[in-house]
Amino acid sequence: MRIAILLYPEFTTLDAVGPYEVLSRLPGAEVVFAAAERGPVRNDVHSLALTADAALDEVDSADLLLVPGGPGTEAQLKDRAVLDWVRRIDATTTWTTSVCSGSLILGAAGLLEGRRATSHWGVLDRLPGYGAEPTGTERVVIDGKYAIAAGVSAGIDLALTLAGRIAGDTVAQAIQLLIEYDPQPPYDSGALAKASPEVVEAVNRLMRG
Amino acid sequence: MRIAILLYPEFTTLDAVGPYEVLSRLPGAEVVFAAAERGPVRNDVHSLALTADAALDEVDSADLLLVPGGPGTEAQLKDRAVLDWVRRIDATTTWTTSVCSGSLILGAAGLLEGRRATSHWGVLDRLPGYGAEPTGTERVVIDGKYAIAAGVSAGIDLALTLAGRIAGDTVAQAIQLLIEYDPQPPYDSGALAKASPEVVEAVNRLMRG
Repeated sequence: MRIAILLYPEFTTLDAVGPYEVLSRLPGAEVVFAAAERGPVRNDVHSLALTADAALDEVDSADLLLVPGGPGTEAQLKDRAVLDWVRRIDATTTWTTSVCSGSLILGAAGLLEGRRATSHWGVLDRLPGYGAEPTGTERVVIDGKYAIAAGVSAGIDLALTLAGRIAGDTVAQAIQLLIEYDPQPPYDSGALAKASPEVVEAVNRLMRG
Repeated sequence: MRIAILLYPEFTTLDAVGPYEVLSRLPGAEVVFAAAERGPVRNDVHSLALTADAALDEVDSADLLLVPGGPGTEAQLKDRAVLDWVRRIDATTTWTTSVCSGSLILGAAGLLEGRRATSHWGVLDRLPGYGAEPTGTERVVIDGKYAIAAGVSAGIDLALTLAGRIAGDTVAQAIQLLIEYDPQPPYDSGALAKASPEVVEAVNRLMRG
């Protein structure tokens, strides 16, 4: 199974790496990270770069496409080369997937018209602008071949769900055990509905940097 | 707060990136990824490289040290330059941390003698060889300034726990909300005690590649 993961400046690292850690362990997986140009691509907080091993024009098909989100999403929404590539790869995929604000890129490419979708809670209200119907409470939304995760860490749950569909429950569970994904968060404020007003105020301060 | 993250060939990506995604969002965090040499460092499944922005000899102190695990751990256990660096940085830290088999590196550096610790379930039995006491059932073990996570994804829980200690509960909860860490795994086989014999057999096949 050929998996293509889009990188662009100011992507959020875990959006890409969370699902990657799961999907790259599927038997027969061949993963390529692709960006406008080959080489290091800096993330949203600038202290880490991931290497794109391929330029976009070197990848012309994939069984699974993964589009991560991040503050850099905004610039991709107006980048015709990126949107054209996303459409071109989507025409070849069995699964087209996104994490976090990556769904806005799928939307801007015209792929979510009339579909149920989700995104990071901070940008959910922008999905209808692309003809998509936001489902605010689901962490993973699958509509046809489009598999869309909510913010950042939701990509891990998305990938395990897909691993089950692609390789069966036993393999998916084996990958879960391999990465010891038995989450025990020390707090319970990972969704907007669960967070106190004080925490929401603090997250707004964090997002303003 | 200065955070140093060790990279080495064949590390497991999420071991480093999970905690990074949390810790890099602490107010005032300055993160550096460091490896034997500057430049891209390939991970365990070879389809992704993270950039080390510093060589080990360019980093001589940190408030927090993070040592990830992975199949490449084995070679580090015999690498005097790496173990010397870990000891040197540890002498300057407020927190010394590891994820997955990264705890074996801390052990080989002599830092876990007489301490409670954990690791990936597959190598837990090697901790006593370094004078450490493995706690098989805890996902995050804190003994003094040593904060040790179980396998791979456990680093996210470790980092949120530390975020609370470092910046207070509200900031930690805000980071949890920012990365939408409200896990909903589609299976419940993320710990050895929860996995069926069939899944354990499948994970052994996956680990053999």
